[in-house]
Amino acid sequence: MLESLVRKNNTKIILVVLDGVGGLPVKEGKTELELAKTPNLDALAKVSALGLHLPVDYGITPGSGPGHLGIFGYDPVKHQIGRGILEALGLGLEVKDTDIAIRGNYATAERSEGRLVIKDRRAGRIPTEENRRITSKLSQAIGEIDGVKVFFSAGMEHRVALLLRFPEELPEGSDRIKDTDPQKEGLEPIVPKGENEHSERVAHVVRELLQRVEGVLSDEPKANYLLLRGFSQKPKMESFEERFGLRACAVAVYPMYKGLASLVGMDLIDFEGQSIYDQITALRDVWQDYDFFFLHVKKTDSYGEDGDYKGKVKIIEEFDEHLPELLELKPDVLVITGDHSTPSVLKGHSWHPVPVLLHSPYVLGGTSQRFTERECLKGELGIFPAQKLINLMLAHSLRLAKFGA
Amino acid sequence: MLESLVRKNNTKIILVVLDGVGGLPVKEGKTELELAKTPNLDALAKVSALGLHLPVDYGITPGSGPGHLGIFGYDPVKHQIGRGILEALGLGLEVKDTDIAIRGNYATAERSEGRLVIKDRRAGRIPTEENRRITSKLSQAIGEIDGVKVFFSAGMEHRVALLLRFPEELPEGSDRIKDTDPQKEGLEPIVPKGENEHSERVAHVVRELLQRVEGVLSDEPKANYLLLRGFSQKPKMESFEERFGLRACAVAVYPMYKGLASLVGMDLIDFEGQSIYDQITALRDVWQDYDFFFLHVKKTDSYGEDGDYKGKVKIIEEFDEHLPELLELKPDVLVITGDHSTPSVLKGHSWHPVPVLLHSPYVLGGTSQRFTERECLKGELGIFPAQKLINLMLAHSLRLAKFGA
Repeated sequence: MLESLVRKNNTKIILVVLDGVGGLPVKEGKTELELAKTPNLDALAKVSALGLHLPVDYGITPGSGPGHLGIFGYDPVKHQIGRGILEALGLGLEVKDTDIAIRGNYATAERSEGRLVIKDRRAGRIPTEENRRITSKLSQAIGEIDGVKVFFSAGMEHRVALLLRFPEELPEGSDRIKDTDPQKEGLEPIVPKGENEHSERVAHVVRELLQRVEGVLSDEPKANYLLLRGFSQKPKMESFEERFGLRACAVAVYPMYKGLASLVGMDLIDFEGQSIYDQITALRDVWQDYDFFFLHVKKTDSYGEDGDYKGKVKIIEEFDEHLPELLELKPDVLVITGDHSTPSVLKGHSWHPVPVLLHSPYVLGGTSQRFTERECLKGELGIFPAQKLINLMLAHSLRLAKFGA
Repeated sequence: MLESLVRKNNTKIILVVLDGVGGLPVKEGKTELELAKTPNLDALAKVSALGLHLPVDYGITPGSGPGHLGIFGYDPVKHQIGRGILEALGLGLEVKDTDIAIRGNYATAERSEGRLVIKDRRAGRIPTEENRRITSKLSQAIGEIDGVKVFFSAGMEHRVALLLRFPEELPEGSDRIKDTDPQKEGLEPIVPKGENEHSERVAHVVRELLQRVEGVLSDEPKANYLLLRGFSQKPKMESFEERFGLRACAVAVYPMYKGLASLVGMDLIDFEGQSIYDQITALRDVWQDYDFFFLHVKKTDSYGEDGDYKGKVKIIEEFDEHLPELLELKPDVLVITGDHSTPSVLKGHSWHPVPVLLHSPYVLGGTSQRFTERECLKGELGIFPAQKLINLMLAHSLRLAKFGA
């Protein structure tokens, strides 16, 4: 229904995602947002619509994929992104409709009496440096198998992402292949088999790949084998522009978030540097070219995951300092929120509703003093499903026609 | 589920709809409701349950049809009312299950070389007086076609509503006929054709009607043709009494709202005058005859649409003056709300949640000082879907049995 009401105009919308911004009391009963000194956010909060969004459902802790899909207006339960795809996006691989993405673990295997047995599923958690050397060796040795291009990208420790790029788009279900990881040491790896004719074609390539990997890594003392998991295809999603009529771009530093934005068809903006200042500068440079700007700040989440509440507070304060630069652009709608909460006390993502600030001329405002969890509870938006944020952004930019007469 | 719990008793429920009552800050940061001096509403708000309803969905601006269906307890997305039906209701035509309703535009057409070409789709926006004369001429000339009765009702300027009344109820889909309006001047009108056998039967009557209209209007200098849009049937809906066990009546002045009430089977109360005082008098006169009283105040919306916040404030104050007369009737449940918001600053309907006041002995109360958008945010009802208002009205009148044992 929403899509049928969308119309276009010249308004501009900025969506700032302070990753994992929501928190819990951490010191003197105050959350990270409450501890942060944020004069600019405070002033904006007083004249904005506030509330909290529920990323997936009550009590559900979202990963980065569902967290972002929700605030982009896509049902995060309907559009599940395969593990292989997320790993590949996170390691900076561009994923196409012709690709099968896979998560890999370097492992230690041993051949005895003709049987290949897994001795260590993580190859002794080899150092990342070692991983890079081995991955580079594989990349050089295996570029293509039966006309299918193969890409490797090293992750942390024993982790690696793989892409198989076929010559043409793959039918749905081509990723129906079980993990090769036997889940226990002392067992043989599971031979990849397709569950249908399309995935069997992929499995055939994977079996040949594994044979070649074994050959290339045969003289490695630890990482002499590769276990594969999370075979997945790029999910079919209508683009952000098709659904919402918005020419959208992403100003993000980390590959995972660039990847998520590109999944819904946002353009990725290249820029120098990694700071919030650099990001805002990049956004300003393309201000004329887009309707919708997704600005992703990663470090609120990173510090939250580390349990470093002071670090998280500092990043919130750093964003606050640069907020006036965003406001100078005079966006018609400015939304500041997170994709989920990452309370420092939990050292990880959590299920708690996420503070939302929506600035526009068409709000009540005057409900709250600050942009914090508790002040957002007093706001005019209430607690609402993340997926409805796009409705609100479109409505406040006057991009939705009336429903019914 | 709700319906299965409904039971009857002798309680009385009043639903006051101050059309478009919700607003946005318009002067000194205050909304129309905040600017209005409303001592009676203030006193009632302090001891009532307050909240806001969401008419259709987050960010969605409803027309009057979906706005009212929601607060009547009908899913406004499932029950979409055709444009022709709304136009007919708005112009005071009673619509039956045997009818096809159509929106018409008088147009200027020209025949040259056998082709009929539209020169002006709105007949130069003829004055309403002129429209009335022409419509009356058509009514006199064309009363029936092939046993199908034809009714015309003049609207503003070039607009007119038509009803085709068939001898018996029409099967679903009988209204599947495309608009005849070519949308551009210089083109021929589109010949009405049915998309199925039922609608083809209707289209056949429409083609004959258009021929006769052309004949009757042939000597008109401007309005010599009729373009037809929004062919529609009365939607199939269970009546208010069937669903909720309430004998319901509507005390409304404007045809559109009478029409909407009659769609769900409410009785329409006839009365002298048009003021809020007249409406309350009329309601009092039928107090013994019904369980549920829908009182519709139009002008809050009209002033909002005009951007006249002072006018809107004045109507709110006028209602406040008469509130004691409603309270004297001692309704078991009194609800005061709107069908949607119409902020004067937007000069039109909007998507903002609508203040709700529910008075009954069985509320918490004590949450808020006034009946305003911001005070309603503090209330015990929260922000809830409009369609759930009927649940609350039934529950507070003790008309719902326990669910489960």
